[in-house]
Parts: sequence; C-alpha cells; structure tokens
Amino acid sequence: MSGSGRGWNRANSTTSRTEAFSDGVFAVAITLLVLDLKVPQAGDLSANQRLLAVLLKEWPAYLGYALSFITILIMWINHHNIFKCLERTDHLLLILNGLLLMGITVVPFSTALLAEYLGRRDENTAMVAYSATFLVIAVLFNLLWHHASSGEELLSKSVDPRFVKAFTRQYRPGPALYLLTFVLAFFYVPASLAISILLAVFFMLPISVNRSIMNTD
Amino acid sequence: MSGSGRGWNRANSTTSRTEAFSDGVFAVAITLLVLDLKVPQAGDLSANQRLLAVLLKEWPAYLGYALSFITILIMWINHHNIFKCLERTDHLLLILNGLLLMGITVVPFSTALLAEYLGRRDENTAMVAYSATFLVIAVLFNLLWHHASSGEELLSKSVDPRFVKAFTRQYRPGPALYLLTFVLAFFYVPASLAISILLAVFFMLPISVNRSIMNTD
Amino acid sequence: MSGSGRGWNRANSTTSRTEAFSDGVFAVAITLLVLDLKVPQAGDLSANQRLLAVLLKEWPAYLGYALSFITILIMWINHHNIFKCLERTDHLLLILNGLLLMGITVVPFSTALLAEYLGRRDENTAMVAYSATFLVIAVLFNLLWHHASSGEELLSKSVDPRFVKAFTRQYRPGPALYLLTFVLAFFYVPASLAISILLAVFFMLPISVNRSIMNTD
Amino acid sequence: MSGSGRGWNRANSTTSRTEAFSDGVFAVAITLLVLDLKVPQAGDLSANQRLLAVLLKEWPAYLGYALSFITILIMWINHHNIFKCLERTDHLLLILNGLLLMGITVVPFSTALLAEYLGRRDENTAMVAYSATFLVIAVLFNLLWHHASSGEELLSKSVDPRFVKAFTRQYRPGPALYLLTFVLAFFYVPASLAISILLAVFFMLPISVNRSIMNTD
Repeated sequence: MSGSGRGWNRANSTTSRTEAFSDGVFAVAITLLVLDLKVPQAGDLSANQRLLAVLLKEWPAYLGYALSFITILIMWINHHNIFKCLERTDHLLLILNGLLLMGITVVPFSTALLAEYLGRRDENTAMVAYSATFLVIAVLFNLLWHHASSGEELLSKSVDPRFVKAFTRQYRPGPALYLLTFVLAFFYVPASLAISILLAVFFMLPISVNRSIMNTD
Repeated sequence: MSGSGRGWNRANSTTSRTEAFSDGVFAVAITLLVLDLKVPQAGDLSANQRLLAVLLKEWPAYLGYALSFITILIMWINHHNIFKCLERTDHLLLILNGLLLMGITVVPFSTALLAEYLGRRDENTAMVAYSATFLVIAVLFNLLWHHASSGEELLSKSVDPRFVKAFTRQYRPGPALYLLTFVLAFFYVPASLAISILLAVFFMLPISVNRSIMNTD
Repeated sequence: MSGSGRGWNRANSTTSRTEAFSDGVFAVAITLLVLDLKVPQAGDLSANQRLLAVLLKEWPAYLGYALSFITILIMWINHHNIFKCLERTDHLLLILNGLLLMGITVVPFSTALLAEYLGRRDENTAMVAYSATFLVIAVLFNLLWHHASSGEELLSKSVDPRFVKAFTRQYRPGPALYLLTFVLAFFYVPASLAISILLAVFFMLPISVNRSIMNTD
Repeated sequence: MSGSGRGWNRANSTTSRTEAFSDGVFAVAITLLVLDLKVPQAGDLSANQRLLAVLLKEWPAYLGYALSFITILIMWINHHNIFKCLERTDHLLLILNGLLLMGITVVPFSTALLAEYLGRRDENTAMVAYSATFLVIAVLFNLLWHHASSGEELLSKSVDPRFVKAFTRQYRPGPALYLLTFVLAFFYVPASLAISILLAVFFMLPISVNRSIMNTD
C-alpha cells in the first residue's frame, strides 16, 4: 500500500508539472498576441488624420488577434481535457507535448504575418503560413491524444472509456478541417479565413456528444 | 465513496488548472505593462536636454502603468475570490473565463494607446478605447460570476451563501461605473480618468461588507 | 472538525494561488530582463567594426542584466520564505503583495535605463531611478513581512517563532542599505553601483542565522 | 509523528514553489524565442520582391528558433526529472537553480544573435556566444544535480538509487559535448552547429539506460 501510494504521488506530480509548464507556455503565447497590436505614434499622424480612422484601418490585426486568441484558448481547453484523463507521462508524451507547445508559440508570429499582409499582395503566402501553423498543431494534438489514449499505461484508471472514445471522435476532424483552410489559402484567402473563424466559433460551443456523456456520468 | 472521491479529485484538478492558466495570463499581462515604459535613447537627447526632464514628460505612461497595474491586480483578487467559491467548471465557464482573460490581455495595448495620446489631440479616442476595455472586462466578470453562482452545480458546498450574496452586491456596480467612465471619455477626458483612478483606489480598500462577513465566519 | 478541515482547505488554496500569481509575475519580470540585451544589427556595423568589439561595448547592459536578475532572484527566495510561514491571506496582504509585485515589474525598465546611461552624462539620474526601484521594493517587502508576522492570524501555527524573529532581523537592514545606494547615486554612481553589487553577492551567500536555526530544527 | 507530518508538508511546499517559479521562467523564455521571428514589413518589400522569398531568406532565424526551443525543452524535461527526485531544497540549491535559470533566460538573446549573423562575417563570434550559453547551462545543470544527489538530505527517500546513478551517467557528458561545440565555433561554424543539432535530436530520443531501469521498476 505504501508502494502504490508512492507510485500515485509520483505520477500525480509528473502530470502536474507538465501541466504547469504547458499552462505557462499557453498563457505566455496567448498574452504575447497583444504585442501584435501596434499603437500608432502620435508624431506619425498627419494633420488631417484622425486616430480613430488609423485604428480602424488596423482591423486585420484585431481580427487576427481575436481569432488566434480563441483558437489557442480552445486548444488549451482540449489540452486540459486530455491531461485530466492522464495519470502519468512518459518520454514520448513529453516530446509530443513539447512539439505541440512549439506550434502554439509560433502562433503570435504567424498571426502578425497575417495581420500585416491581409488585404495586400502576398496575402496568400501569409494565410498559408497561418493555416499551416494550425494544421501542424491539430496533427500534433491528435498524435498526443493517440499516444496518451492507446494502451492503458498513461490513462487514469478512473477515466470512463466513453470519455476516451468521445474525445477521439471530437479531435479527429481537426487535421482535415485545417488541411482544408490550408489548401484554400493558396487559392482564395477569404474562404480560408472564413472557415478558420467558423471553426473557432463552432468549437466554442459546448460539444453535445461530450455533454451527453457527462450528463450520464 | 470511491465514486465521490474520484468526483472530488476531478473537480479539484479542473478548477486548479483553470486557475493556473488564468494566473499565468494575469501575471504575463500585468508584467507586459512595463514594455509601455520607454527608455529614451541617449543619442536622441539634444545637448541641452536632461534625462530627468525627458522622463518627467512621460508622466502619462507612468500614470497609465500604475492605473492599469492596480486595476488588473484588483481583477485578479476578484477572480481569485470567485474561484475560491467554485468546486468544478463547465464548458461555458471556461469560455467566459477565456473571454475575460482576452479582455485582460488587451489592457497593455489600450494602456499604451492612452499613454501615447493623453494630453494630445485625439485623447478622447484613446480614453474611449481605454475605458471600453475595462467596461467589457467588468461585464464579462459579472457574466462569469452570474453563471458560476446561479444554480449550485459549480459552487463549492462549503461556501457560505452570505459570501455569494456579498460578492454579487460587490461586483454589480462595476459595469455601470465603467460605463460612466466610457461615456465621459467622449466629452471630458480628465473626468473619465479621475473616476477610473478613484475606482482603483476605492477597490484597493478592504470592502467592509465582505469583511464584516469574514469576521463572523 | 469538519469546520476546521474546510478552513484549512480554504486557507491553503488562498495562499497557493497568491503564490502562483506572484511566481508568475516574478518569472515573467526576471525573464523580460533579457529584452534589454540588444542584438547589434549586421547592417549597422561598419566595414572595420567587429561584432565582438560591439558586444563588449555593451557591458553596462550585461552588468545591469546580471545584477537585476540576481536581485529579483533573491527577492523571490525571500518572498518564498515569507509565504512558507503563512497559512492564510487577507485583503491588506494581497494589496501589499500586489504593490511589491508592481515594484518588481518596474525592474526591467529601470535596468534598461541604467544600461543606456551608465558611463554617460545623466548616469546619476539613471542610477537614482534604479536604486529607487529597489528601495521601494525593500520597503514594501518589510511592510509585507510586518503585516504578515504581527499578530498570529496569518502565520501558520507550525512556524517556529525563532524563524519569524530571524527573518525580521534579516529583512530589516534592506531599506537602510538601499537608501544608502539611493543617496550615493546622486553624488557618485560607481559607489552606489558597487554597494548594489555587494548586496546582491552578500544575499546570495547562505545566511548563517537562518541556517543555524534550521540545523537545530 | 505530527512533527514529521509538518516537515513533509514544509518540504513539499518548498519544492513545489521552486518548481512553479522554474516552470514559469522556462515557459516564458521558451515562448519569448518567438520574438526573434521578425515579420517583414509590407512597405519594405520592393515591387519585384515576393513575401515567400523574403521569408525563406530568414532560415537562420527558423533554425535557431527550432534548435533553441528543443534544447530548452530537453533542459526542462531534465530539470523536471531532477526535481521529481527531491524532497526538499536548501539555499545553495535555490542559488544554483537560479543561476541555471539565468542561463536559460539568456538563450533568446544568443539565439537572436546567431540568427542575425549566421552566414555572415562574424558568424564565429555569434556561434561562440550561442554555444557558450549552452555550455554554461550544462555545467550549472551538473552542479545542481551534483549538489542535489550527493548526500541524502535533499533526495526523496522513495527514489531508487539506480535512478540517481542513471541520471548522473546521463547528464555527465553534457559539458564536454557543449565544450566541443564551443571550441569548434572558433574554427568552423557549420561543424559546431551540426553537433548542436545532433545533440538536440539525440536527447529527444528516449534514453535507453533510463528506460530499461523504468521497465524494471
């Protein structure tokens, strides 16, 4: 019993530090997005330019900010849901989680790129880079969940198998959908952007499958 | 008993990671405010300009820094008080909390805007944006608390109902007061700014309602 | 007993979230110091300028970086020691802690100021601002500890009173010593800077009073 | 028994806050790396310059980003493994840990330096600085582990001595290998860089020694 107590403690501590580090990276990356919002310098405004007009012209920056913030937020919620199911970590999980975090920290860069080029020549290149970031994140997310949920070594004993199946169903469409935004970005940026926005809004809604299971829990 | 033990563990873990992520965002946002304090480059100073004079001319940046820091700090304290009362989270709470954090991360931007334009043409626009940020945060804060405290699903069983009522009373005036600073910003910036400062100072004082309850606890 | 159990849980949660938020601010502020280290742009180097020479000329930035990093680190260790002794927080403690954190987040700014002006005209102004930051932090630190340790409401029951006395003795000289660096900064920057460095080195050494008590623990 | 309970609680709290602070610094430093990825301004592109070509020319920045991210990630995993074995901290451990974190926070600076000068004159100087950062980190890491594992005061009682030996074997080659990249940087940058990349890839693979012990655990 003392042995199992120790084991539990060790596993618990492991997951919690990985969560703490991940939460830190998510929190810093999501907050660094604000650095993409630039304050127009008062000295740069000409005599007949008004601040409001200058700010409104920056709408791609605000759109990119909101879209990236909500997308990272949803990824954090999913990350949170995954780790709730885990009791221990292994080296591969730490590496996959680290690569996922690497994708997350790139978001402020690709968001700034999109904000700078949206509505300009080469907006396709920026949108391709933007959607590629989320495609890579979605793929890594599925790899992480696949490794975590296959076998029973990492999963917590108390996790309902229906949860595991529901999460698998919920995460599976992600890569295909972001692949779609990625492909569309080469041809028609507004369509690619619109789908990215729809995905963010859709994932913000409570997922019914998930909910129905929780209700029966 | 094993079932309730599991439930408690899961709920506890849920709240704690949401708190950790939120703490991270609050901590990064409040610390990023310092990036709005600009160091005057030595090469930019003319022969008869002294550093002290140049620094003192930056008073709007220091004022904005202090005001935003204290306002975010108070919001963190309130956020902390709310989550102390919670035992579990649900999807809507995570989304409302996420939107609240989005408001918090905008503060360094609107503070930089205010610091750049205070005392200049278009200071109304900057003050409107600044007070709008806090208005949105105050509204989201009340939505979060309303969702958290209505029904008994999320509240911790051990929370004194008088606490809940006291918090509701305490948070309710926020939106109206920030609406006032928002409206005033269109007409007279000093009045809007003065009320924002008074609000920050007032909320820093220990709230008597709250205290009297704690004493009887 | 159920009541005291709850109380303990609540108190525990309170201190831990304040610690988490404080740790976040300390961690972000100490890491933001690196933004003061500027990479010389390759295009700005003239044909006969070598990178090494350009980097070496930036020694005030490296000195300021190391000094501020170690000083914030020591403050974090002290903060950590204080909170180890606490079992609960109150509003005034949260406010004092918040103001202390505000001082901490100003350090990257005053460090950048010192790095820019050290060895130049107006270095006195920069050194005064730098030492003033640490003076304010040291004063707030003593106020925090005084409030935390006076009375027994916030202190953990299990804290050895000799610990409390030892910490009080240890923290008390801080304000006077930083006041000395502050006053010296007006007259002779090297002396003020040298004392700041000595203080950082001295506090990095294990404090013997503290240690001897721990050994008897 | 009550006394040992207290002692355990205190020690537990000590380690956890040091871990939380360290996680924060690791998380902020690893995320700040993204600030080294610069978005080319649309106005700076000439009529016949395409965004894609401009972005591709920035490959040293992407290489440096990926290399530094993975290296910091591995160091975090190692840090995590060390602290899993610890039950308490002392002043020297906090100082060594602090100096290690100082090395970690310098990484975004030396990465930016490498990205700016790779493939240009003075790339040796940049590569020397870059590998020196990791050399210092590797040395501090070994000092930290040596202090933590020698004697039994800091180690957790439940740690398998074979773990301790395996970690010692695993960490020992680090300083020599980074010393090699440091020395090579003076003569031939590609070789130094290639070894740094190989080291990162190698450490990402699960370490067999470590694994075989875990399997027998």
